[in-house]
Amino acid sequence: MNIDIGNAMAEAVGTGLTEAELQSLDERVSKAHDRIQQGREDDTFGYVALNLPSDTDAAEITETVEPFTDSTAVLTVGIGGSALGAATLTSALGPSPVDHYVLDNVDPERTTAVLESLPLESTVVNVVSKSGTTAETLATFLVVREAMEEAGVDWTERTIVTTGSEGPLRTLAGEHDLPALNVPEGVPGRFSALSAVGLVPAALCGHDIDALLAGGQTASESLEGSLFESPAYAYGAVAYALDQRGIGTNVMMPYAEGLEVFAEWFAQLWAESLGKDGQGQTPVRALGATDQHSQLQLYRAGPTDKLVTLVRPTERADRDIPETDIPELSYLGGNTLGTLLDAEFEATEASLAAADQPNVRIELDALDAHGVGELLYLMEAACILAGELYGVETFTQPAVEWGKRAARGLLGAGEFEEAAAVSAKHRLLID
Amino acid sequence: MNIDIGNAMAEAVGTGLTEAELQSLDERVSKAHDRIQQGREDDTFGYVALNLPSDTDAAEITETVEPFTDSTAVLTVGIGGSALGAATLTSALGPSPVDHYVLDNVDPERTTAVLESLPLESTVVNVVSKSGTTAETLATFLVVREAMEEAGVDWTERTIVTTGSEGPLRTLAGEHDLPALNVPEGVPGRFSALSAVGLVPAALCGHDIDALLAGGQTASESLEGSLFESPAYAYGAVAYALDQRGIGTNVMMPYAEGLEVFAEWFAQLWAESLGKDGQGQTPVRALGATDQHSQLQLYRAGPTDKLVTLVRPTERADRDIPETDIPELSYLGGNTLGTLLDAEFEATEASLAAADQPNVRIELDALDAHGVGELLYLMEAACILAGELYGVETFTQPAVEWGKRAARGLLGAGEFEEAAAVSAKHRLLID
Repeated sequence: MNIDIGNAMAEAVGTGLTEAELQSLDERVSKAHDRIQQGREDDTFGYVALNLPSDTDAAEITETVEPFTDSTAVLTVGIGGSALGAATLTSALGPSPVDHYVLDNVDPERTTAVLESLPLESTVVNVVSKSGTTAETLATFLVVREAMEEAGVDWTERTIVTTGSEGPLRTLAGEHDLPALNVPEGVPGRFSALSAVGLVPAALCGHDIDALLAGGQTASESLEGSLFESPAYAYGAVAYALDQRGIGTNVMMPYAEGLEVFAEWFAQLWAESLGKDGQGQTPVRALGATDQHSQLQLYRAGPTDKLVTLVRPTERADRDIPETDIPELSYLGGNTLGTLLDAEFEATEASLAAADQPNVRIELDALDAHGVGELLYLMEAACILAGELYGVETFTQPAVEWGKRAARGLLGAGEFEEAAAVSAKHRLLID
Repeated sequence: MNIDIGNAMAEAVGTGLTEAELQSLDERVSKAHDRIQQGREDDTFGYVALNLPSDTDAAEITETVEPFTDSTAVLTVGIGGSALGAATLTSALGPSPVDHYVLDNVDPERTTAVLESLPLESTVVNVVSKSGTTAETLATFLVVREAMEEAGVDWTERTIVTTGSEGPLRTLAGEHDLPALNVPEGVPGRFSALSAVGLVPAALCGHDIDALLAGGQTASESLEGSLFESPAYAYGAVAYALDQRGIGTNVMMPYAEGLEVFAEWFAQLWAESLGKDGQGQTPVRALGATDQHSQLQLYRAGPTDKLVTLVRPTERADRDIPETDIPELSYLGGNTLGTLLDAEFEATEASLAAADQPNVRIELDALDAHGVGELLYLMEAACILAGELYGVETFTQPAVEWGKRAARGLLGAGEFEEAAAVSAKHRLLID
C-alpha cells in the first residue's frame, strides 16, 4: 500500500501545502506518534485499538463460528460501529456462498422485507452491542427473535452475541448458553473492525480473518515518527493541514464497488472522531467512476473546500470489452473494463488538480483480505494522528447523548428534559 | 407533502434566518418564478423538465414494457442521471416480484458478479444514454450483450433502449428492431426521473407510473410566486439563503431505507446543477436513524456549516416490538419500530436545533408512487429556484468535460492535450 500526496502540494494545486509547511508539521507528528505509542503500551482507552491486529484472538473467533458454517446467511444486528466494520469487510472481500445481511436501522418496512427474504432456518444471527442496551439494536433483535420463533426456528441455536463484559446481552447469552464474544476493552466501536465485532461475519462468510489481521499488522509496523516515512500519518497530517486552510470537506472516493461501504465506514471514523469543538472535516462518500457523472462538476467548479481521496487496488480481476463495429465506440474494443476504470481514475485525479482542487491517491496492492486489513488500519491510525493534531478527544462522542435522552423520554422510558425541547419545536409550515 | 422551515429560522437557531430576510428574498423568488414559468411555456432547455408530469406519455411506456412483463429481473445499464432516477423510484416503492439491478459503473468484478447472479433468459436489459456514446454505459452494454450471447439468450429480444433522437444507440435500435423510447428533448439527465428514463424500470417492476406522474403534477400545481406559498421554493430559498451565510453543506437525511437512493439522486441534482462559479452547497447523503450513530456527533459539535434536511413519510407499514422481561429494555415493548424511528427523527431534529445547527423537515404523506413523484418534483423545482438565486447555469455541467477528454486520450481514442497532463502528475509517494 502506498499514498501519493503529490496533488495536495503547492507544486500541483494553488491551495496546496508547501514542503516547508509539512516539515514544520512533522515535528508535531513526531510528538503525536510518541503519545500514540505510549497509549498503546499502556493500553489506554482508544489508542489500544491500534494493537488489535496482534491482540485479537482469531482462533477463538474461528472456533465460535465453526458450528454455524452450514449457514447460508448471516444477519448482523447492530448499528454504527457495531455494523459498519463488519459490512465493510464482507463487502470488500466480494461474493461468498454465505450472504451477509445487515439490519442497522429500525425501518419497519426494511426489517420486514429482510426477514421475509431470509431462510431463517439456515441463518445465523450476529447481534452486536457493546453496552447491550442500544435501543435500535435491541429492538431489532427482539423482532428477529420473534420472527424466528414464529418460523419454528430455535433462535438460541442460531445466535452469536458480541458484547461487553456486562449488560443485558451478556446476561441473555448466559441464560440461553449462547456463544458470546467480547467487544474488546478500550476500543470504541468505530475502531473495532479488526476484532470480533468486524471479523465474525467475515469468518462466517469464509473469508481469511488471519490475513485481515496480518494486513493490519503490516500497517501497524509502518507507523514511524515522521509523516514522510508513514503512509497513515502522511494521510492524517495532510488532511489536517488542508483543513486548517479551509479545505473542510474530505471526499472518500474509491474506484471499486467493493469499497463503497468502506467509504461509509471511513465517514463514521472521520466524523465521529474529529467532529468536535467546532472542528472536523466533513466526510463525503463517493464512488468512482459513477460519481464523476454526479459530483465531479461540483468538486471541480464549486468552492475550493474539498480534499478528494481516490483509492484503488492496483490489481483486480478484469473483463474484456468486446470489439464493436460501431465507429464512435471502436476505441473501447480491445480495452478492458479495468483499463477504462483506471483511465477514469487518473483522468479525474488530473482534472481535479487542473481545477486547483487538492487530492490524494491511495493504492492498495489488491482488494484481498491482507489489503483490506491494511487499508482499515491505515485509516484508523491516520484518524488518531489527526485527532492529536486537532487536539480533540478522538475516542468519545458526547454530542450524541442529547438525542438519545430525548428519544428515551419520547418513548416513555423516564423523565428527560430534552424530550420537552422536542415538543417546544419552533414551526413554520409551508404546504 | 409539507415542509417545516421553523428550525432554519433565527427563533430556533443562532445561525438561522429572520422573517425580514425571507420577506426580502421573496421578491427575488417571485421574479425567479416568472422566469421559470416563462421557460416552461417556451419549452426552454432545462425548464421544460418541470412539464414532464403532463408531457410524459405513460401509455407509450406501458405499451413498450408490456411484452416484457414475464421478466423476473430488470438490468438498467446507464450512469448518473440515466440510472439514479430509475434506481430511486424502484428503491422507494419497495419490494417487487421483479428485481431491479443497476450497472452504473465499470467495475469489472461487480459487473461479473451481477451477470453471474442474473437469470439472463428472463432478464430485460434497459440501456439508457442520451448521446448513445457514454463510455461507461456503452462498454457495459457491449459486455452484457456478449454475456447474453454466451448464455444462448437473444439479446435483441430482451433489450429496451432509451436514448436521444440520434446517435449509435438509436442506430442500433433501428438495425435490430429494438423497442426504443426517447430521452425527452431539453431535459438534462438529472431532471429526467419522471420520463421514460426513470419510469421504464418502475413500470417493469409493476409500479404505478400514472400515480408517479400524478404526484409530480400535484407538486407542479403547488408552485407559486412566493416561498411562503410554495414548499419547493421554500426549500430552495432557505438552502440558498443559508449557504450565503456560510452553511455550505446540505445533508439529505431521510428516515426511511427506501429513500437511501433518493439521497444519492438529490446529491447529483444539487451538486451538478449548483456547483458552478465557485458556488454551490455540497450535498451529503445520510440515513436516519443509522447515521445518528455515525455522523451526528459531527453535525452537532463540528463546524456550523450544515443544513440537515430530514425527510419522512407520515404513514408507513409498522411492526410491533415484542414485550421483554429484560428490565433495561422494557420501555421498548409495546412500542413499534415506527414509533422508535419517529422518536429518533424528532429527537435528532431537536438535538440539532439545541446545538444551533439549522435543519428543515420534509414530510410526505406516504412512501407510495404519488408521494415519491411529488417529492422528486419538489426537489427539482427547489433546485431550479436555487439556481436562479445563485445566478448559475443550472442545466449544464461543463466542468466534467476535461476528464472525459483526458480519459479518451488515455484509451487511445485520439489526441487530447488533457491526457498529457495526466502523465505529468506531480508525485510525492509515501510507502
